[in-house]
Amino acid sequence: MGRGLRTCAAVAAALTLTGAAPSMNDILAHSPKGDWHAVNPANTLVMSLPHGRVTIQLAPAFAPNTISNILRLVHARYFDGSFVVRAQDNYVVQWARSDKRSIGSGAMKTIPPEFDHAATVEFPFHALPDRDTYAPETGFSFDFPSARDLASKRIWLLHCYGMVGVGRDVAADSGNGTELYAVIGQAPRHLDRNVTLVGRVIDGMELLSVMPRGTGALGFYEKPGQRIPIQWIRLGSELPAAERPRFEALRPDSKTFAAVLTERRTRPDPWFKHSPGRVNVCNIPPPVRPTSS
Amino acid sequence: MGRGLRTCAAVAAALTLTGAAPSMNDILAHSPKGDWHAVNPANTLVMSLPHGRVTIQLAPAFAPNTISNILRLVHARYFDGSFVVRAQDNYVVQWARSDKRSIGSGAMKTIPPEFDHAATVEFPFHALPDRDTYAPETGFSFDFPSARDLASKRIWLLHCYGMVGVGRDVAADSGNGTELYAVIGQAPRHLDRNVTLVGRVIDGMELLSVMPRGTGALGFYEKPGQRIPIQWIRLGSELPAAERPRFEALRPDSKTFAAVLTERRTRPDPWFKHSPGRVNVCNIPPPVRPTSS
Repeated sequence: MGRGLRTCAAVAAALTLTGAAPSMNDILAHSPKGDWHAVNPANTLVMSLPHGRVTIQLAPAFAPNTISNILRLVHARYFDGSFVVRAQDNYVVQWARSDKRSIGSGAMKTIPPEFDHAATVEFPFHALPDRDTYAPETGFSFDFPSARDLASKRIWLLHCYGMVGVGRDVAADSGNGTELYAVIGQAPRHLDRNVTLVGRVIDGMELLSVMPRGTGALGFYEKPGQRIPIQWIRLGSELPAAERPRFEALRPDSKTFAAVLTERRTRPDPWFKHSPGRVNVCNIPPPVRPTSS
Repeated sequence: MGRGLRTCAAVAAALTLTGAAPSMNDILAHSPKGDWHAVNPANTLVMSLPHGRVTIQLAPAFAPNTISNILRLVHARYFDGSFVVRAQDNYVVQWARSDKRSIGSGAMKTIPPEFDHAATVEFPFHALPDRDTYAPETGFSFDFPSARDLASKRIWLLHCYGMVGVGRDVAADSGNGTELYAVIGQAPRHLDRNVTLVGRVIDGMELLSVMPRGTGALGFYEKPGQRIPIQWIRLGSELPAAERPRFEALRPDSKTFAAVLTERRTRPDPWFKHSPGRVNVCNIPPPVRPTSS
């Protein structure tokens, strides 16, 4: 995440600048190890594309049934030989099979929607103090941007950049996980509580976001040859040990996360002439970093 | 703009669906011609890239001095042979010269910042009813997303997707227009009132948004060969008649614009199970369309 719109010449200087206020990168670099937690490879999906791999952290607390179904599809190798079939600018990339392959006997064709949940004590919630256009209260639950309505006691995940959801037809229960998408533009928050979100891209997002935009309606590719092939999708824990995703996520309840929020809201960097004093939940992707352990 | 996260199979059906509520595309298709105004080619910049052209509509009311300077640079062919030097995922692409070419005698090296303006009667403002994280009031002024603060009587342009701004160093007056950027991700609204915005991409955005992300700090390309060459940048009115940009923009004060806002806020399409009832200013790119006249 850049700290400004610096000219080329200013970048080198800025990166070595040791001002009074630490940058977000400084805050993360000096954070205690205990403020991070390992991302469990069994809670990730890895997608193999021609130019690299994409890792998705799943959110089973929010979409247990839908994620179970996706895992059944993954185990049945449903996505091997699938394609990115749609890339709509400032919206989403979407992937699916292009043939009529059956989803197999193990997976469900319909699933009751998991658009939101009862905001029980099982859902931690670290609220942001700033107002939001769409929700009464926003913040972070587990490692995901989320919102809560205490009046109706509901909690839900948000369509921020890099979030992964389940395409569906008009029927609310028609999203069975056979078509997934990732957000590649301005957060389409009108989709919140209309689609089951299942996770977020934590590595390789730049492979999805640069895909050529489809010229058909809604950004679907018009010619089969334009689709981007997906070799396979696997559960991270299925991969050989050396290839398993190794990431850690910053705990939303940590002091480091609180320091990041403060830095993002106030922008003490002297480049800023006007402190925003506020931040939108979708402008703080919860930090993730690779780990060797 | 997609109307949902439909599966492939549902798209064909959805596109021919004639429900009770017209879609945004229907509203635009049936709008009176008088609800649109021609975008003056003399108020546009055209950038020639290896794979096509990008058209930027300028906002001279908001940045008269900075735009004057950019036009001097364009007339001096300053940008011919420049490069896209930076592509940071979920943030910006930025272009500049990579050599030490002088800006020439006609252009200024520093310009007093045009981060915001007195909200005089010369600035029309069509307010959105919905709250925003960053500004007291948001809406549209001329053809641009903007915000207003009636307490301090200031108005300013917003860093929504596709907006074009002027990179600068730490000094507020150091943005002289020699380095420009376009927003390619979640609106970085913390930059509002910190940078002079000069316009918005109205055509060819998908050429900028798919550029390979730079692997250097802040998304700068690490090797000169990775930079994307810019053949030239011209004022739209300088081009031969057949190549001049021909677009029209929906008037923010028109009934059609009001109908679009209502549709975007309520989402009457039966695909939606939860009406958002609100919309963020950056989720409504003011409509533009090509015109043959």
